[in-house]
Amino acid sequence: MSEQKLPSRTEDFSEWYNQLVLRAELADYAPVRGCMIVRPYGWSLWENIQGALDRRFKATGHVNAAFPLFIPKSFLEREKAHVEGFAPELAVVTIGGGETLEEPLIVRPTSETIIGHAYAKWIKSYRDLPVLINLWNSVVRWELRTKLFLRTLEFYWQEGHCAHATHEESLEETMRMLEIYRDFAENDAAVPVIAGRKSQSEKFAGALNSYSIEAMMGDRKALQAGTSHDLGDHFARAFDIRYLDRNNEQQFCWTNSWGLSTRFIGAIIMVHGDEQGLVLPPKLAPHQIVIVPIYKNDGERSEVMPVVEKVRATLGDAGFRLKVDDRDMTPGAKYYDWEMRGVPLRIEIGPKDVAKGTVALARRDKPGKEGKSFVSQESLTGAVAETLQDIHASLFDRALAHREANTHDPKNYDEFKQVVENGFAFSWWCGRAECEAEIKEETKATNRCVPLNQPGGEGQCIHCGQTTKEKAIFGKAY
Amino acid sequence: MSEQKLPSRTEDFSEWYNQLVLRAELADYAPVRGCMIVRPYGWSLWENIQGALDRRFKATGHVNAAFPLFIPKSFLEREKAHVEGFAPELAVVTIGGGETLEEPLIVRPTSETIIGHAYAKWIKSYRDLPVLINLWNSVVRWELRTKLFLRTLEFYWQEGHCAHATHEESLEETMRMLEIYRDFAENDAAVPVIAGRKSQSEKFAGALNSYSIEAMMGDRKALQAGTSHDLGDHFARAFDIRYLDRNNEQQFCWTNSWGLSTRFIGAIIMVHGDEQGLVLPPKLAPHQIVIVPIYKNDGERSEVMPVVEKVRATLGDAGFRLKVDDRDMTPGAKYYDWEMRGVPLRIEIGPKDVAKGTVALARRDKPGKEGKSFVSQESLTGAVAETLQDIHASLFDRALAHREANTHDPKNYDEFKQVVENGFAFSWWCGRAECEAEIKEETKATNRCVPLNQPGGEGQCIHCGQTTKEKAIFGKAY
Repeated sequence: MSEQKLPSRTEDFSEWYNQLVLRAELADYAPVRGCMIVRPYGWSLWENIQGALDRRFKATGHVNAAFPLFIPKSFLEREKAHVEGFAPELAVVTIGGGETLEEPLIVRPTSETIIGHAYAKWIKSYRDLPVLINLWNSVVRWELRTKLFLRTLEFYWQEGHCAHATHEESLEETMRMLEIYRDFAENDAAVPVIAGRKSQSEKFAGALNSYSIEAMMGDRKALQAGTSHDLGDHFARAFDIRYLDRNNEQQFCWTNSWGLSTRFIGAIIMVHGDEQGLVLPPKLAPHQIVIVPIYKNDGERSEVMPVVEKVRATLGDAGFRLKVDDRDMTPGAKYYDWEMRGVPLRIEIGPKDVAKGTVALARRDKPGKEGKSFVSQESLTGAVAETLQDIHASLFDRALAHREANTHDPKNYDEFKQVVENGFAFSWWCGRAECEAEIKEETKATNRCVPLNQPGGEGQCIHCGQTTKEKAIFGKAY
Repeated sequence: MSEQKLPSRTEDFSEWYNQLVLRAELADYAPVRGCMIVRPYGWSLWENIQGALDRRFKATGHVNAAFPLFIPKSFLEREKAHVEGFAPELAVVTIGGGETLEEPLIVRPTSETIIGHAYAKWIKSYRDLPVLINLWNSVVRWELRTKLFLRTLEFYWQEGHCAHATHEESLEETMRMLEIYRDFAENDAAVPVIAGRKSQSEKFAGALNSYSIEAMMGDRKALQAGTSHDLGDHFARAFDIRYLDRNNEQQFCWTNSWGLSTRFIGAIIMVHGDEQGLVLPPKLAPHQIVIVPIYKNDGERSEVMPVVEKVRATLGDAGFRLKVDDRDMTPGAKYYDWEMRGVPLRIEIGPKDVAKGTVALARRDKPGKEGKSFVSQESLTGAVAETLQDIHASLFDRALAHREANTHDPKNYDEFKQVVENGFAFSWWCGRAECEAEIKEETKATNRCVPLNQPGGEGQCIHCGQTTKEKAIFGKAY
């Protein structure tokens, strides 16, 4: 890895992002346009995200399964809004085993239709409900403008698919999963998010209502970081998912689906990253700690390494994910490398530390003197645990302060047009699709969501002036 | 679930297998011919297999990554034997985003080619070696005759891909992974296997040599349960994977690949299953224990349930995977259900047990009185741990005895023809492809492998009589 500087984050955010992803070895471009290779460091981050979500899914009664990659073309056509939304984005297999297929196969863009087919077969009675299934897989959407992690032809995600006896239960589940995403984003990734309802024009193709968590990136643009869809009885009617109720009468099920993807890695990069590279939240970082031994010669090395090994063993036993970097390189080159990769905490151990019984801690979130401290080897485990907690809190606070400083309540539409150039507007909105479309046309800002947290009362729509009871977040978005 | 009996395992093994997979809710047929839905119970078993393997991979220095689903058609054509082997089995995407693609995309049948492309880019110097990467994903091979888990169009697996500086190191890695598969199969799945070298006609398309673990199923047919391929420098030359050595000279890398798939679930079913259904090895079972409360009325229920809860908490805290079945069904219906699903150990707790401070244990591997015992609630944790260990050992021993009883050393080719009708022949083989092909033609038995464990000495080829130093396993195979 060369020690070349990254492009400036403030001057060229987009190129800073692209270079960071490559140089931190998170991902690489694949030979097929728009596809990505997730490299081991990036995949290890994704495995930690998977672990954090999977624990929450299982704790709320969900089980994992696997559904096929290929979906018959006719399945997609059964739900009208669904096929209209996805038709332009499909990859189609037309040849199998050397022969042209009678019915072309769609490479799944999402699995609602094939799930609908299976649930119709599996669900017979109210005793079979609810069905709470999650899939970890990849899906394909033929995107034209792609960017590593943020928008790729193939991306990795989880998609949850649940069936319930009543709409009330299904909506409750939809909101439970949205809350799980919020909790994960804020408490594991240190990414503050706004949970809300998508507008009818921005909802999932086939849903009754979609809900999302929205985050503000370092360049003040929005990123939809997870979605949960109340599918009403749309897919149940399209696929005939029915159950016999307690009175022995046939009823349609109510379904929901929810997903979070490798796009979230893009959010982590763009929320926390700085001029030196990636900054990872401690709970998700592949390595929470890197230990760099400092020595000038073999004599010093033989003094330092036993202490390094002792510290490694102590912290490893305490459950921290850590790495000793004993490569044949200068300490400075190692610092550069691990800063680029965003390791939250660096521990330096040199001859002076050995003599004094201390180690030096250097925080990734506070480069320079501010983030440096010396602690005794004896109290290291506690100090490390505390420091990692503090790094998480400080990353979250910084991101929240950034979002708050850049979220405005413009007094009129002229002011609105200005603020959405460089941040969010939290404004009264009449709820009409026409108003939303005109705002988008005129400002390039989209309606991100109607936050669940509303101020109450009423006000005038920022665009048309109509009296309304809801405020929405508007902003330019990825 | 109806309490209909399975087809007889001895009379119709194939239909017994098909029905068992459906009734134990391991998998279901997908709407696309030859594809499968892995249901939550089957996927949970696969997750445990993944965990057992992933731990071993990481302990030997491997990291996970993700490579794209789509491979340019031209990539496959670069390694001649590879494309010849896979060409008849490919699924091809010809349309993307509504347009016909200039270069059709192959849905990966395996990832050697795209790995080759990336490694050529990433590997520069001997310092970058070895590269030890594993992928957990699904691949597609257009099979004509399919069977759930054993042979499906899309299947789930892991594929490891390593690059080394020398052939010696690469071969060492190839054998290390074969040994990991053997260790996993025998010590986690209780499936005895024969590790050996595949013949040149049976090796992986593009490999120098392939190695496999082979197991004998309940119907005495063979199943290849995991493979490890020494790819020589074939893919390194085809994709130009080179490194600068210590003398600053360009050298080709040496690569290997190794995989184990959801096919292994088929092996577990066919090795351990019995007339009542699935029998799962305790280390991989989704539920190691099911607790069935026994009561006739609410009074008994209120006596029994606190003890059930206490036992659940004690065993749960001790780390066992267990389930309390408190459904509104007769105990008999529950027994049937969990026997079909192969849960290794059942604990029954009724009013008499409450009075005596005992519980009843019923082993899945020994139905009836032989597998039943009563233990005190106080010593339950130890008794359960011991019983699960004993179940593992007894499953392994039974499978090994079955294989040994059905592995023969025929004295001549006439006897050979007889024994391979109903088992394995372990016979001297000259090593010539012609002999192997004639044996296959005449007996339908294939050369499974040349076991690593050889008796030594020499003998006459069972088919042509030529003197040779190696014995091979022949048998009919899945």
